[in-house]
Amino acid sequence: MPIIKGPQAFPRVEFLRRLAAVKSDMVRREIDALLVSDAHNITYLTGYTTPSGYVPEGLVVSIQGEEPTFILRQMDAPAAIHQTFIGRENVIAYPETFIGDHTRNGYDMIIDFLHDKGLARRGIGIEFDNLSSQAATKFRTRLPEARIVDCSNAVTWIRIVKSDLEIAVMREAAAISDAAMLRAAEVIRPGLREADVIAEIAGALARGANGKPGTGIAGITLCSSPRTGTAHIPWSEDVFRPGSQINIELGGVRHGYAVALMRTFSIGEPSKRLRRVHDAHIAGMDAALEAVRPGVACSDVANAFYRTYEKHGFKKDSRCGYAMGIGWLEPTASFQSGDLTELKPNMTFHLMLGNWFDEDFGYVISESILVTDAGVEVLTKTPRKIFEL
Amino acid sequence: MPIIKGPQAFPRVEFLRRLAAVKSDMVRREIDALLVSDAHNITYLTGYTTPSGYVPEGLVVSIQGEEPTFILRQMDAPAAIHQTFIGRENVIAYPETFIGDHTRNGYDMIIDFLHDKGLARRGIGIEFDNLSSQAATKFRTRLPEARIVDCSNAVTWIRIVKSDLEIAVMREAAAISDAAMLRAAEVIRPGLREADVIAEIAGALARGANGKPGTGIAGITLCSSPRTGTAHIPWSEDVFRPGSQINIELGGVRHGYAVALMRTFSIGEPSKRLRRVHDAHIAGMDAALEAVRPGVACSDVANAFYRTYEKHGFKKDSRCGYAMGIGWLEPTASFQSGDLTELKPNMTFHLMLGNWFDEDFGYVISESILVTDAGVEVLTKTPRKIFEL
Repeated sequence: MPIIKGPQAFPRVEFLRRLAAVKSDMVRREIDALLVSDAHNITYLTGYTTPSGYVPEGLVVSIQGEEPTFILRQMDAPAAIHQTFIGRENVIAYPETFIGDHTRNGYDMIIDFLHDKGLARRGIGIEFDNLSSQAATKFRTRLPEARIVDCSNAVTWIRIVKSDLEIAVMREAAAISDAAMLRAAEVIRPGLREADVIAEIAGALARGANGKPGTGIAGITLCSSPRTGTAHIPWSEDVFRPGSQINIELGGVRHGYAVALMRTFSIGEPSKRLRRVHDAHIAGMDAALEAVRPGVACSDVANAFYRTYEKHGFKKDSRCGYAMGIGWLEPTASFQSGDLTELKPNMTFHLMLGNWFDEDFGYVISESILVTDAGVEVLTKTPRKIFEL
Repeated sequence: MPIIKGPQAFPRVEFLRRLAAVKSDMVRREIDALLVSDAHNITYLTGYTTPSGYVPEGLVVSIQGEEPTFILRQMDAPAAIHQTFIGRENVIAYPETFIGDHTRNGYDMIIDFLHDKGLARRGIGIEFDNLSSQAATKFRTRLPEARIVDCSNAVTWIRIVKSDLEIAVMREAAAISDAAMLRAAEVIRPGLREADVIAEIAGALARGANGKPGTGIAGITLCSSPRTGTAHIPWSEDVFRPGSQINIELGGVRHGYAVALMRTFSIGEPSKRLRRVHDAHIAGMDAALEAVRPGVACSDVANAFYRTYEKHGFKKDSRCGYAMGIGWLEPTASFQSGDLTELKPNMTFHLMLGNWFDEDFGYVISESILVTDAGVEVLTKTPRKIFEL
């Protein structure tokens, strides 16, 4: 029997609006077809969140035709029909025999499709930054008469400004982030294994908040003494001890959209150094939030943080955050010196103020924020403190 | 203060053995340096499992020098020192200002290193399959006098045969897979949300088994009615209902090694069709396991399954499994017709017999297996049945 359409995270009109923006960009770039192979961009344009992109797949957006064509592996085609707004006639499955075959793969099917549709002699945009060099060579070799244009991050830049519907989904994800962080605060105690806290956090991220379950479990980072000077190391097999400091980064997920949050925990009284660092971060966070409003540049927000932070006697080498949405980090704008991206209403960022001072000492705090007409709204609501346990 | 070395999953001599195998291969390929950029290959050669590879990083293995050199982002360097066997003098950090910079990145630092070490005019192996086409162009452009050799999957093929130490770690991961699947069987009931079962599974994967915590949570797939015809779709926001069928795929993780397991659940009595399918799969599984022994080809195992399965009146288009280890799937050998890879003792596979018959109907069962001198050992121990709840 055919699979039914599942409930959609967004109405059809929302996806058509997103596609219209992409098509405008395609006209500007003088291309007739755009091959979208980045999984997060496919999510943006269709609603598909199935993690099948470890084998070739791609969405072909054509200037002609209302819906894009999704070409993917046979065993994943029913998921595409169920999850996305596009009609089954625009979901094309390539055979399972292509998998594990070292002579041909799903990209050949996509190239065949471009030939069949008469697009092989037109302008074709490709996200080269997302393709292996071998796949890129295949496209160039098998489309010798196309005018191929590198469209890396073209769709990613379009999705930097969210719709109100996307913001609503991100608010749901933010509430999940808050719930998971508070769950960590409830359970961390000396003698417990780090893995047991991860179990609780992962559980909270799945169970969700306000009746809305998490639809994914994003990476959870828990760096405890003596690993607080590391930024992304996985949890260890160790137990918590009196005096341990714990840095946690986590993110709630709804329909592919992640909302990140970082907080620092201390079992027992925080050291004087940790308190001084925290105070400097809070002052820097206030200054950064104060700076956020439409019309200013990303660098202005970073510099507001850096200036205040340095007055407190500290220095942070890493950027102060990045655009955030589908799949967590969006590789577009960053809060850092020199990034002149202009803030616009409905952009969302992870204002990431984590700092790793010494190999064995770091501190984390962050908020996920929304640029509003008036300035800024902080989406995450967890108290901005060192959690003393 | 410098960060201390953490507990190592494997002794130094084990990593040196792995590197010796890679260096032999490098001699055969006539290269003096190999740039390993695949995160799982970096895990294999160093013990590093920190998920920092979303920005450029790479391990340079040189024919000279006992240890490789790990070049990565400043904020992740302490994790490399803590997690890996290599000395701090062989961990090189590139500055945070390279992140989010669209003109230069960490690969420039790797190229500078190759120049500094006098390797830029020698044979250099690169894993092109793992690099974006833009990164590949950077290496070719900035190393014009090197003899560049595509070494995609070279290390991956070396790690297809595991050491006994690796097998021991995979046994621990297998026990976690079993514990998580049994936890699913304990909790699934009508009215419960799919997300609540995901929470329990994720918790079990983190808590681990036999006193060994999970060190990662691999992707969990839960496809329930009406989505059993999909292979990788994420859990839905729905609740389980009387009569629901649930297909689950999960994997315990220890030190980067994943061990996969799939089982099918039925709330209430399974349909006649589901029973017939299950019986055919059990017969096919027995035939496949019977075929596994050193000296036979991967295709022999697949064909043993297909022959028996077809006698029962069914057909499976997809492959019957793949090499498994660090990071789940290893993109080398597959159990499929035409794959002539010879089985050797200490190879490990996910014998994946999931089949998706109709858009709205599929069935899953799998085992993770070890090729032994005598034949086969099934690492996962969960009862091979439809779990009737």
